[in-house]
Amino acid sequence: MIKPLGDRVVIEAVAKEETTASGIVLPDSAKEKPQEGKIVAVGSGTLKDGERIPLEVKTGDTVLFSKYAGTEVKYDGQELLIMRESDILAVLA
Amino acid sequence: MIKPLGDRVVIEAVAKEETTASGIVLPDSAKEKPQEGKIVAVGSGTLKDGERIPLEVKTGDTVLFSKYAGTEVKYDGQELLIMRESDILAVLA
Amino acid sequence: MIKPLGDRVVIEAVAKEETTASGIVLPDSAKEKPQEGKIVAVGSGTLKDGERIPLEVKTGDTVLFSKYAGTEVKYDGQELLIMRESDILAVLA
Amino acid sequence: MIKPLGDRVVIEAVAKEETTASGIVLPDSAKEKPQEGKIVAVGSGTLKDGERIPLEVKTGDTVLFSKYAGTEVKYDGQELLIMRESDILAVLA
Amino acid sequence: MIKPLGDRVVIEAVAKEETTASGIVLPDSAKEKPQEGKIVAVGSGTLKDGERIPLEVKTGDTVLFSKYAGTEVKYDGQELLIMRESDILAVLA
Amino acid sequence: MIKPLGDRVVIEAVAKEETTASGIVLPDSAKEKPQEGKIVAVGSGTLKDGERIPLEVKTGDTVLFSKYAGTEVKYDGQELLIMRESDILAVLA
Amino acid sequence: MIKPLGDRVVIEAVAKEETTASGIVLPDSAKEKPQEGKIVAVGSGTLKDGERIPLEVKTGDTVLFSKYAGTEVKYDGQELLIMRESDILAVLA
Repeated sequence: MIKPLGDRVVIEAVAKEETTASGIVLPDSAKEKPQEGKIVAVGSGTLKDGERIPLEVKTGDTVLFSKYAGTEVKYDGQELLIMRESDILAVLA
Repeated sequence: MIKPLGDRVVIEAVAKEETTASGIVLPDSAKEKPQEGKIVAVGSGTLKDGERIPLEVKTGDTVLFSKYAGTEVKYDGQELLIMRESDILAVLA
Repeated sequence: MIKPLGDRVVIEAVAKEETTASGIVLPDSAKEKPQEGKIVAVGSGTLKDGERIPLEVKTGDTVLFSKYAGTEVKYDGQELLIMRESDILAVLA
Repeated sequence: MIKPLGDRVVIEAVAKEETTASGIVLPDSAKEKPQEGKIVAVGSGTLKDGERIPLEVKTGDTVLFSKYAGTEVKYDGQELLIMRESDILAVLA
Repeated sequence: MIKPLGDRVVIEAVAKEETTASGIVLPDSAKEKPQEGKIVAVGSGTLKDGERIPLEVKTGDTVLFSKYAGTEVKYDGQELLIMRESDILAVLA
Repeated sequence: MIKPLGDRVVIEAVAKEETTASGIVLPDSAKEKPQEGKIVAVGSGTLKDGERIPLEVKTGDTVLFSKYAGTEVKYDGQELLIMRESDILAVLA
Repeated sequence: MIKPLGDRVVIEAVAKEETTASGIVLPDSAKEKPQEGKIVAVGSGTLKDGERIPLEVKTGDTVLFSKYAGTEVKYDGQELLIMRESDILAVLA
């Protein structure tokens, strides 16, 4: 089992589709594209005044996160990402 | 449904008109131009001493935000932006 | 109506006179020159421990602010500036 | 009247004498030289937990400040400087 | 004995295998690869309001940490790493 | 009289001897050398929750400080240095 | 006597052995090597809410610290280092 520390989560990234169906590329957008993934483990939360504040996301959530967020981990033959909860943009439900 | 985390909001940007009616371009202003949009989802607020402080903006608000703020998200065929509430400059009412 | 968020204010800048009457230019001062304007709207204040702390300036105040402060907004045919209260240097009375 | 905001002060700088009487220049000191001035207006103080903490300096004080501190303001035909109290090094008494 | 200070831990790194079994190299990933290790000593914790908050990890834990984290120490003929607990990404259990 | 503000002190630097008796220069040390001085005035202390916390050093103390710390002031024909207490490394007693 | 201020300590560095017995150099490690020393004086601690929090290390401790930490001081013919306690990595016991 892999257990992230503090406010970190472990995410299994969904394969990103970088080309659109029609193949059209929108030119010169300076903004980064987020990526989708599934949370497979969450940390025990941030320590605040002696207490652990639980995270807002939970195991099984489908989330959007910045493409450059997190650290890649290979664990049990699986490609995973470890990042802080603050790097997650939104939950898809 | 897309649910932003913490103090983040999801915004549907209004198409920006980059040329003026008369076609006149005001020369060399170093200041950035903001963009208009509509809020489609808000996060549960910032965590402060164990409580969530609700955001000042709400779903349906028309807002002004910096042109470079936020991350572009394509969700359900719609182009959306996810940004922190602090990147919103003003509400139009 | 345009309503700035948090500790932001909306300012109508007074046309700046960049040349002096006599046309003399004081050479090589590294310091920036401030600009004058009138406050047309103020935010609800900074959030501090669950309370909004009202701003020190109010609508109608004539203020001095740094030339590079704020974001230009065109609203209702009017050129406005949105900036944080902390970018305002002084009130003229 | 010019009233600075928060922890800012308005200072009338004393004309600086950049050459010494004997004309000798001390070579290659990397340290900046401070400048002298008189305080003509003080802000209402820094906001801390809902209260204004008054400044340590007062109108009329002769102060030393860093040469690059503050913003130049021309007000009522007078050249003034607006800076934060923390940019003032010492009071001369 | 080596005793780290505050929120630091001493880690014995596990030899990293930089080539995969099949020898395939995934091209141009900008993300850093973490490294595995075993905790051999933990500090007394971070000082917070006069109290020591114990660390989340303990001696004997197998942990993942960033490849560039920590300072190498040679102690008693053993190659060790000293790093802050915040540099540890996850515990493997 | 010169009275420093807040947590600042005024120091009369002791003339630094940059060459050693034997004239030997220790090669390529990247570390800066501190300088010695005598405190001639201290500020009223840092403001913390409405109270002034007195400084740890006092007038008359011989102190060591970083060579690049502080601002040079010429006052009453005397070369002085104004710096924050945190730039002082140690007291010699 | 030399008395460091606040959370600083004075350390007598142990002569560092930069070459190994066998003369083998481990190639291209980007990590810095720490250095060993003995604490000869400690400050009165960090000021926190009006109280001094004593340091975790004490006079006589053998400590490891980063090679580039601290400021070199020559005092009473002895080469010493003054650094903050947070620059100390571990105590050897």
